[in-house]
Amino acid sequence: MDIATINALPCEEFVKIFDNVIVKCPLIAAAVWPRRPFKDLIAFEEAISEFIDSLPDSGKEGLLRCFKALAGKEFQNGTLSRESDEEQKAAGMDVLNSNEVSHMARLNEEYQQRFGFPFVICSRMHNKVSIFNQLLVSCQNERTVERARAIKEAKKICHLRLQRLVLSD
Amino acid sequence: MDIATINALPCEEFVKIFDNVIVKCPLIAAAVWPRRPFKDLIAFEEAISEFIDSLPDSGKEGLLRCFKALAGKEFQNGTLSRESDEEQKAAGMDVLNSNEVSHMARLNEEYQQRFGFPFVICSRMHNKVSIFNQLLVSCQNERTVERARAIKEAKKICHLRLQRLVLSD
Repeated sequence: MDIATINALPCEEFVKIFDNVIVKCPLIAAAVWPRRPFKDLIAFEEAISEFIDSLPDSGKEGLLRCFKALAGKEFQNGTLSRESDEEQKAAGMDVLNSNEVSHMARLNEEYQQRFGFPFVICSRMHNKVSIFNQLLVSCQNERTVERARAIKEAKKICHLRLQRLVLSD
Repeated sequence: MDIATINALPCEEFVKIFDNVIVKCPLIAAAVWPRRPFKDLIAFEEAISEFIDSLPDSGKEGLLRCFKALAGKEFQNGTLSRESDEEQKAAGMDVLNSNEVSHMARLNEEYQQRFGFPFVICSRMHNKVSIFNQLLVSCQNERTVERARAIKEAKKICHLRLQRLVLSD
């Protein structure tokens, strides 16, 4: 799909195609739709990024709450979106041993209790070890620091999903 | 479902139950979830309303773009959500004659061209005549006036959906 094709999409089509580059949240794709025509994919991504930045903190946290826990119940049950499932597998979440699964579950629970949103990380850019390390660090972070880190990761996930969706087509 | 039950819901359940009180937009339900415990249904509604007000204008318009056109293609094809479908029928959108259908389509198109989002109205509080009248008036409105009117209507739709969902249960 080239940028001219993207720029020509009516809103409904645009939202249908791009809603899961950012956790099946149609409002976000619908909000950036009138920013077309985009010069290129980078400009499209920047429009999404700027929109996310323009959300109030409650909205940023709402967005984070739409992500699913790493190696969590939905991953175990195979009920994640295809994109999420592949991303978690890319970071080795499918080959954790049972100790690692329960360690991850404990840390995720601690994190969720502390911040009220799940731990978000761009797992395609990580592996098991770096994910555990970041989760341990994040559990000690201040809320504002952690929210900003998580939003950055959400944008990285969006970047890679967009690349795969547009360039692989 | 009473307010104590709502207040006890974990985030995922809460989002699953309430995302279509506001056009299947999980971010909104997820953003108000930490505002629990709500004193009553009114307080819950107020939290949603305040969150919508806190969105940037681009986000408010993104939200409006998630609504489907009145008597539009999706209504004709029966692919709306159950809630939307029932609401449109309550205002008589299923008994328009062919002249009325094409008149509605023309006005919707004119509106969409002018504002870049579809005409939104709480159809349960209207009938065919008052909808046509409002659509004619709205097509002449300034953008800021029209966005504010449409957001008010979106909140009325949310109010009625919430009432039906919670009180009928």
